Amino acid sequence: MRPLDSIDDGRRVSIVDQRYLPHENRRLELESVDDCARAIRDMEVRGAPLIGATGAFGLAFALRVDPGDESLERAYALLLQTRPTAVNLRWALDRIRHAVGGLPKADREATARAEALAIIEEEAAMCRAIGEHGVGLIAAIHQRTNRAVNVLTHCNAGWLATFDYGTATAPIYLAHERDIPVHVWVDETRPRNQGAALTTWELHQRGVPHTLIVDNAGGHLMQHGKVDLCLVGADRVTRAGDACNKIGTYLKALAARDNDVPFYVALPSSTLDWTTTDGVQEIAIEERSSREVTHVRGKSGDGDIMEVEVARPSVAVSNPAFDVTPARLLSGIITERGICDATEAALGEFFPEQK
Amino acid sequence: MRPLDSIDDGRRVSIVDQRYLPHENRRLELESVDDCARAIRDMEVRGAPLIGATGAFGLAFALRVDPGDESLERAYALLLQTRPTAVNLRWALDRIRHAVGGLPKADREATARAEALAIIEEEAAMCRAIGEHGVGLIAAIHQRTNRAVNVLTHCNAGWLATFDYGTATAPIYLAHERDIPVHVWVDETRPRNQGAALTTWELHQRGVPHTLIVDNAGGHLMQHGKVDLCLVGADRVTRAGDACNKIGTYLKALAARDNDVPFYVALPSSTLDWTTTDGVQEIAIEERSSREVTHVRGKSGDGDIMEVEVARPSVAVSNPAFDVTPARLLSGIITERGICDATEAALGEFFPEQK
Repeated sequence: MRPLDSIDDGRRVSIVDQRYLPHENRRLELESVDDCARAIRDMEVRGAPLIGATGAFGLAFALRVDPGDESLERAYALLLQTRPTAVNLRWALDRIRHAVGGLPKADREATARAEALAIIEEEAAMCRAIGEHGVGLIAAIHQRTNRAVNVLTHCNAGWLATFDYGTATAPIYLAHERDIPVHVWVDETRPRNQGAALTTWELHQRGVPHTLIVDNAGGHLMQHGKVDLCLVGADRVTRAGDACNKIGTYLKALAARDNDVPFYVALPSSTLDWTTTDGVQEIAIEERSSREVTHVRGKSGDGDIMEVEVARPSVAVSNPAFDVTPARLLSGIITERGICDATEAALGEFFPEQK
Repeated sequence: MRPLDSIDDGRRVSIVDQRYLPHENRRLELESVDDCARAIRDMEVRGAPLIGATGAFGLAFALRVDPGDESLERAYALLLQTRPTAVNLRWALDRIRHAVGGLPKADREATARAEALAIIEEEAAMCRAIGEHGVGLIAAIHQRTNRAVNVLTHCNAGWLATFDYGTATAPIYLAHERDIPVHVWVDETRPRNQGAALTTWELHQRGVPHTLIVDNAGGHLMQHGKVDLCLVGADRVTRAGDACNKIGTYLKALAARDNDVPFYVALPSSTLDWTTTDGVQEIAIEERSSREVTHVRGKSGDGDIMEVEVARPSVAVSNPAFDVTPARLLSGIITERGICDATEAALGEFFPEQK
């Protein structure tokens, strides 16, 4: 199962509505640029690669209605402003715009659609490659300890965020497929609880042992030797290796460093932003609604999906969605081309075409 | 208002039922040892000093029913096992047991009651003294920056956890009373949301400006210079200065260190445990119910206080309630006798009678 499947030969897409997981596995169909923009903005889809693919289909849908330049630019602007931080969205939109730019209007929709489908297949192949490179880290720990390897992850960088193997989860899924015993500590990931709602659900679907913890618990577990490896995804990584990921990632990287636990960020190269260097200074962090913090969504005893308010009404809230983990705290970066140090020199060697 | 008031001349106590805050300000009356044990275990009362006082009254209530040695020991054991981590509970129970130990049975209840009342007054005086010592930290930052001082706190170490000024909040309340502008970043403090539910509520009651954040956000705020000072309470501090406090405190201390933000722990000396040295190795950390993580309590749109489930049923959960911040990460410890370094030597100098 994929979180976004092309149906009707790419004229519509079917998505998992992630707002209802883990309680209900609902699918929705998108067939217009407005549908796609809403799905991204309201986080029916989330995860950097999945957002990129959804945006790409959004452009294709817009070009079906009107293949003109103005329509293209309007759709591009609409989609781009839905989520400001993930670089994959801009990357995917730029790719489609570039692909159709010089074409006659009659060819634009079909080309955009083909590109969107190509993006999905490429992301899936990159996830698989990330897994192949990263699984060696887990295998080496198992070989040394001869017990199940405890991996901590934050948020959801799994197959619900991208295609087939996910990014941070790809080494985990491959280890599990190859009978290397692995157990995952899943941060619940406030405020939206993607760990509690999505990561535990997708790990359960594939039979990978896991334990849910609050975001506050990871440091304590590391102090007591209960974490062998941290694996997280990223929404944007600078040319210097600074990793922007779900808020709270930085705190786990600090704890990993303090306890000599290896900390890796896994990402397809579409997540690398070669135009930024200092992530803390340069990456704009999306500030999301206060309601994400003051209200918690879940299932009532009666089986209704509903929200409850956990703070007093009108309390002031700050809700930054991401933080930046400086490259100096990373043990390495796992990409589809292999594992490299989180430095500008190492990334430049891996991706010489970006120089 | 106090979170526990003696009524009927100490024959009953009235408590704020903290499970209903911030939505409802309900009070409950306790008049038996079983009432007190339940209130502690079910977290109708929480916070190390308040738990200690509630336990002390529990012993007095038990001695009213039966002043014999067996009754005393049974009540002591019942109360002690309600919460394993906070040292104040054992400290308060030991104090009462010691005070009544050699007395004729006829005098035991009255003595226990008087000691319980004395504990409250002493805790209140210690909180005030902690505030007097700590307010200088806030004043100095204000003097340097000439703007509101941003203090980050975790969990609730306020007047709901103890008496009158609280511990970590005492410097904040005194600064506010003295017109030193102060703003508090309040960690929501998963899994029980004491920050979201209690700290924001009590700061609001006293008019102190504050902003609610998820636990994941503090590191990001520190990276961007938005935190001037971290102030937290403690449930137990070792003779070497290792601070056991609500789970997640350690992660904030790491972020503070990484960003040169001063990090202080505020506590009455009743929270010092002179029998332990290495907090990470020696302090038993309470593992609480998985339901605290999988279910979130709040107020529905219809105004009902209820729980919603945020993860799939039967997911495995680990829920350690506290962690230990090594002394090396603390800028200092604020006690009723002043501020000292978090070292065995400095604590020994402040409390020479403990040597």
